[in-house]
Amino acid sequence: MNFLKRYDDYKEIFEAELKKRIETLNSSNETLKDAMVYSLTVGGKRIRPVIMLAVAELLCVDLNKVLPFAVAIECIHTYSLIHDDLPAMDNDDLRRGKPTNHKVFGEAMAILAGDALLNYAYELILRSVTDNNSLSAGRLLALYAGAFGMVGGQALDILSENTVKNEETLYKIHENKTGKLLLASTLVPSCLAGNAHFDKLSEYGKNLGLLFQVTDDILDVVSSTAKLGKSINKDADENKLTFVTLYGLDGAKSYADKYYGNAKSALSDLEDNEFLLELLNFIKDREY
Amino acid sequence: MNFLKRYDDYKEIFEAELKKRIETLNSSNETLKDAMVYSLTVGGKRIRPVIMLAVAELLCVDLNKVLPFAVAIECIHTYSLIHDDLPAMDNDDLRRGKPTNHKVFGEAMAILAGDALLNYAYELILRSVTDNNSLSAGRLLALYAGAFGMVGGQALDILSENTVKNEETLYKIHENKTGKLLLASTLVPSCLAGNAHFDKLSEYGKNLGLLFQVTDDILDVVSSTAKLGKSINKDADENKLTFVTLYGLDGAKSYADKYYGNAKSALSDLEDNEFLLELLNFIKDREY
Repeated sequence: MNFLKRYDDYKEIFEAELKKRIETLNSSNETLKDAMVYSLTVGGKRIRPVIMLAVAELLCVDLNKVLPFAVAIECIHTYSLIHDDLPAMDNDDLRRGKPTNHKVFGEAMAILAGDALLNYAYELILRSVTDNNSLSAGRLLALYAGAFGMVGGQALDILSENTVKNEETLYKIHENKTGKLLLASTLVPSCLAGNAHFDKLSEYGKNLGLLFQVTDDILDVVSSTAKLGKSINKDADENKLTFVTLYGLDGAKSYADKYYGNAKSALSDLEDNEFLLELLNFIKDREY
Repeated sequence: MNFLKRYDDYKEIFEAELKKRIETLNSSNETLKDAMVYSLTVGGKRIRPVIMLAVAELLCVDLNKVLPFAVAIECIHTYSLIHDDLPAMDNDDLRRGKPTNHKVFGEAMAILAGDALLNYAYELILRSVTDNNSLSAGRLLALYAGAFGMVGGQALDILSENTVKNEETLYKIHENKTGKLLLASTLVPSCLAGNAHFDKLSEYGKNLGLLFQVTDDILDVVSSTAKLGKSINKDADENKLTFVTLYGLDGAKSYADKYYGNAKSALSDLEDNEFLLELLNFIKDREY
């Protein structure tokens, strides 16, 4: 099957599940729910859910088992974007071409909408824990989302603006900030399948995460605001540590090739690996 | 045993567990961990953990089973205070007589420290799920912490500054903002004991939550900044909806009596109820 068709199919399955979950989401307050739903449905590639569904299919995991985790990881990703965009953090007015959450609902509500999405992610996860495999999937996601994972990476990223800019710090930021949730997307289905192909998927997920981030850093320089749906050249302006600010544009591109190669070889002897391999091209060649 | 001695004993058991957990808390970044630990250890009555331990003892639940949930609920409470104190929310410089998190670590790090504490709470909960009872305890806590509980109440509280000030809104704010975590403190041990005395503890917890909040509203008017460790008279200044702004000081006091009575009768026919009954006096007569 054509890659993009299959990507859209996964995305559609995910969007249907997300819609269903949103309909039954309990909130004591409608404005809060509106703010949560606004950022959850403002668009986006849904790459984490798509990876989860694709890996689940490769491992013959029932998609109904992985879908609540796919919604949960998208909630975690979305809350992190809402908080990242706040004036005290990256101070972004646009996200995916639309006004950011705090521009629409105000800063206080944006903080709370992020908090509520994070709580909701775990509400979903805890409701989906039914056996040891789903429990270990939940534990992995929690570990990778927090101080040891994504939030730890965000903290490093903020501190990097005023700290020593070297390779070690760069890796630690990207490994955690973007990397850990993408890695979790490949490993949650593995947990659900009793740790099937855990090491290979771990190697694939780590390199896919780095590939995603180096491409992001490159796009910040070479893309346009119209395509990217957010401001460009922000990294250099803000004195951020990125692959491009550390290695230059050509250096960053050769790192992209390296991670692409590593991720590809990690899955080389797995059956039905076509979609996950083509996904690497999709990430590397994307324009937004 | 003397009430205050027993309160301190529970507090000490909790502090020892918290210390142990902090020592093994994984973070990719030391500053982030410092910010988390700062607010976790800045003091406080630890009333939620103390309630959990006391109810657990009443229900003959092994304290080791409830302790991770006690740390988790204190992490959730602490993250909510950090975010509440932010300039975009209540804009408080002092908490428990010490500078608030963002005053020490900056706004961005305070937002992330709150996020990390919330993630860590669920990491702990998921690690403590070992059977159906602990799973239902985790699910209850997640439901009561999020949009349907505490965060929903915070959102209502913010919106109340510019909305219609009536009894219904006041209850909905307090039932959720302060009430749901205090209620969870009584119900988590019940879940761990297979829903033992669930209805009675629910009635007790709801009224204890309202008693706590009405006393808080009263203290905002009659206490001093020195005693309270935070600014006073903020509610009226900010046009907040509270028991005092709605019913006046005397009206608020008679509501306190009513909730005190309701909570007391809920537990009247339970054995070993002395500590939980005296706790109501402690809450009602506290000066900070």
